[in-house]
Amino acid sequence: MLSEGAVNVYSHQLAARARVTSAQVRRDLMTVGYEGSPQRGYVVEDLLEAIGKRLDPPALQPVALVGVGNLGRAVLAFLRGRRPRLAITAAFDRDPVLVGGIVHGCRVYAMRDLPAVVSREGINVAIIAVPASEAQAVAMELVSTGIKGLINFAPVRLMVAKGIVVEDIDMTTALEKVAYFARQAVEEQVRK
Amino acid sequence: MLSEGAVNVYSHQLAARARVTSAQVRRDLMTVGYEGSPQRGYVVEDLLEAIGKRLDPPALQPVALVGVGNLGRAVLAFLRGRRPRLAITAAFDRDPVLVGGIVHGCRVYAMRDLPAVVSREGINVAIIAVPASEAQAVAMELVSTGIKGLINFAPVRLMVAKGIVVEDIDMTTALEKVAYFARQAVEEQVRK
Repeated sequence: MLSEGAVNVYSHQLAARARVTSAQVRRDLMTVGYEGSPQRGYVVEDLLEAIGKRLDPPALQPVALVGVGNLGRAVLAFLRGRRPRLAITAAFDRDPVLVGGIVHGCRVYAMRDLPAVVSREGINVAIIAVPASEAQAVAMELVSTGIKGLINFAPVRLMVAKGIVVEDIDMTTALEKVAYFARQAVEEQVRK
Repeated sequence: MLSEGAVNVYSHQLAARARVTSAQVRRDLMTVGYEGSPQRGYVVEDLLEAIGKRLDPPALQPVALVGVGNLGRAVLAFLRGRRPRLAITAAFDRDPVLVGGIVHGCRVYAMRDLPAVVSREGINVAIIAVPASEAQAVAMELVSTGIKGLINFAPVRLMVAKGIVVEDIDMTTALEKVAYFARQAVEEQVRK
């Protein structure tokens, strides 16, 4: 909205874009600690700053990546420089050919170095980009080193201790799902 | 489970892995058209085949990709060969340097060729990997050519006609979210 030149925004406008209710938007933004006015709504620039203050890391929050195959490389390439304060600072792989090298600007370590590197760099977030069959074991290893948040690209449900946050990103299943419903839509169209 | 050597599986075992109820599993698998027995559960191999028959495309279902930047390339590299019947057969970009070339085995076309290529190849699914500011316009263009399903990597909520399926994959927001909760978890630990 800022890039579109908007100075003020009302909760109902934000609600429409986020597909939630205006009441929800107002409640959420109260949590952020910025209140709008019924007459002029929110000042876009101030609102952005208030949200950033709450959500952005105050300093660099380093991220670990486990698995430097096709997917891991893709994630490295995509996230590089996107959020300067959330940078992948260490990658891990069990392939000795990769270990010691640099991929998309990121050093690749052996799996056995995980605890030392995580502790040295103060890492508390990790991205899992290993095959499905290895994801659970990797998750447990990461959690045992003190990692509190996981992004999981493997198509398995991870079992982790309470208090560990997991976000699943499953591109293949997303594609299969959309493809399935698209076929249904086409068939329905043909039937008509 | 098949790779682990399992011959039979009970609905409660599937339910535990999928984190749903056994009743839900049984209902869903009835839809697939394969019934287990209360004594021996489901035969893993037969169940897989029944699910595949229902969910897999009967023949090649070609997929279009719009946006061949860092993210688009990553998606191409990752999905290549992963599901042989769901292949990205055409990529589109507005950068003339890319148009006419091949990226990860996939031909890149100009945006103006979209309607012709989609119709010629019978494409009904597309992946949107363009910047957020362009995603809505691209979505509308895709839908107007007859696309029924979209995977959206742009961090915006797309407005599309009823009957069009959209799956959002937002890696940056997922990372920000996990990083936020990981910081909270670490702070809580420190407080204790």
